[in-house]
Amino acid sequence: MNASEFIKVFAPATVANVCCGFDVLGFALEQPGDEVWVRRTETPGVIISDIQGVSGLSHHPDENVVGVVAQKMLADLDVSFGLDMQLHKGMPVGSGLGSSAASSAAAAYAVNELLGKPFSTEELVPYAMEGERAASGSAHADNVAPSLLGGFVLVRSYEPLDVVPLGVPVALYCTIVHPQVELKTSLARSILKKDIPLQKGIRQWGNLAALMAGLLKADYSLIGRSLHDEIFEPERAFLIPLFKQAKQAALDAGALGAGISGSGPSIFALSATEEEAVQVRKAIEGVYTSSGIDLHAYVSQVPEQGARVIQQPTLHAQP
Amino acid sequence: MNASEFIKVFAPATVANVCCGFDVLGFALEQPGDEVWVRRTETPGVIISDIQGVSGLSHHPDENVVGVVAQKMLADLDVSFGLDMQLHKGMPVGSGLGSSAASSAAAAYAVNELLGKPFSTEELVPYAMEGERAASGSAHADNVAPSLLGGFVLVRSYEPLDVVPLGVPVALYCTIVHPQVELKTSLARSILKKDIPLQKGIRQWGNLAALMAGLLKADYSLIGRSLHDEIFEPERAFLIPLFKQAKQAALDAGALGAGISGSGPSIFALSATEEEAVQVRKAIEGVYTSSGIDLHAYVSQVPEQGARVIQQPTLHAQP
Repeated sequence: MNASEFIKVFAPATVANVCCGFDVLGFALEQPGDEVWVRRTETPGVIISDIQGVSGLSHHPDENVVGVVAQKMLADLDVSFGLDMQLHKGMPVGSGLGSSAASSAAAAYAVNELLGKPFSTEELVPYAMEGERAASGSAHADNVAPSLLGGFVLVRSYEPLDVVPLGVPVALYCTIVHPQVELKTSLARSILKKDIPLQKGIRQWGNLAALMAGLLKADYSLIGRSLHDEIFEPERAFLIPLFKQAKQAALDAGALGAGISGSGPSIFALSATEEEAVQVRKAIEGVYTSSGIDLHAYVSQVPEQGARVIQQPTLHAQP
Repeated sequence: MNASEFIKVFAPATVANVCCGFDVLGFALEQPGDEVWVRRTETPGVIISDIQGVSGLSHHPDENVVGVVAQKMLADLDVSFGLDMQLHKGMPVGSGLGSSAASSAAAAYAVNELLGKPFSTEELVPYAMEGERAASGSAHADNVAPSLLGGFVLVRSYEPLDVVPLGVPVALYCTIVHPQVELKTSLARSILKKDIPLQKGIRQWGNLAALMAGLLKADYSLIGRSLHDEIFEPERAFLIPLFKQAKQAALDAGALGAGISGSGPSIFALSATEEEAVQVRKAIEGVYTSSGIDLHAYVSQVPEQGARVIQQPTLHAQP
């Protein structure tokens, strides 16, 4: 393996659930995202020397997802040197856009690159999941997997872990609107019931199966007909101010479909063209700004690539 | 439209549910299946002049699915003449192979052909569903749609009806073993609970989404990993003697996966080659014959075509 001294990695935000794919489906965005910079040190152990972009995150490597991920990788590889890490947050925490997942994915990808790629990108998913476990208590993969691998990614199973990159052969553009309201993922999850009605389950998995067919057969109409959430959106929508109006505005503006990104409060919409995605962004912005609620908005193609090296100032070929 | 005097149609048996696709997914077989013969008569109304292959089915057009389907079509088309129908059952009733669906699909396809194709094959699905309503009280589509259209067919939604032929680009071979035990569909359905645990639902739709990806990406390994039923098979398996042993024998013999066909008692297994499907048939047969239980067994490619004209003795071009 060829190792290097310093590496800088970007990993993107992600949309999990995607209406009917609760806990099993997610996709990557181009922007926003997080950067992790990693420098090799002679002293063993991991330090987090700088965090930019948000306040309030711990610098302790046991209490920050990038430190948790890096320490787990170093321990498994029995590496004698240490790491100096910097985390540059390019996205807000608690937005429903996979913030902890982007940091975790960037950390896993960066450490792997620094060490000369001992792991494939798919093998990094379990390491990035350790960051999710540290952040939320649950090692879910539906954000970290698309953040690492790009595109749409399915999590078929956790035991054993079975992550399926879909390789969707169709261009899709995502509009994200993040209204500036606070919503705890733990609250959004706490209102979920332990049981669901069978009939709603059947409609949900009928839509998910059809969404898969739409994505893989490049059928925009079928994608649009399938982007429904029969179970969770009706229970969670009230947590997001103006959600119904925003969703309707997106559909009226030509979106194929729209829903809650992850646990919210961000709203996502998918469109067939960038022009439509921009129109959708303007339509949703109109709903919120007329009510005096601030927001951040992004328009992004769903990219084929996820985490990636963005600058590599020093590279040394080493045994 | 070109109408004719006499038409003979075959429609195949089907496997519904397909492990993880309860109530939304089904596929066609080549054999067995039912034939419906239809002759145009001057006297209005529908008569069923002959039923072969099984005993106990009503000849009254209001009480036999082929009569129900044909009458509904004639009424909607405001046709002045009548029909003399014959039903030749090539498959047992109550087998879990879509027996009433094959009769209904054959009737709809035959009447449509006789009338010069006023409907597309997809438009026949709601008519064939009327046969299912008459047979079981529920107008489900997951058997009639693949029996009419062939291949794998998804029923995304009932309101509105949205039937999606998948056009699976991969050869699959199905082994069917029908142990000669009686099982009422109504009993198999009555043991279903109205609610399901959310965690089982998530695993079920993760598997279904992955099955769709496996089918559409021609990934045999993924198809095999996805053919699990977390919810219904554990509740219904005890209704089918030796089910667990038969399924294990199929997997040991090389099947990609196996499960209950529809509501049972037939067992289906999917394989990548015809040779493997034959080995799987022998393995399951071994389980039953060593226990003295009679069975019927079939090996069939999953065909691209469903219902079809098999003989057309008189054809007149008419306005």
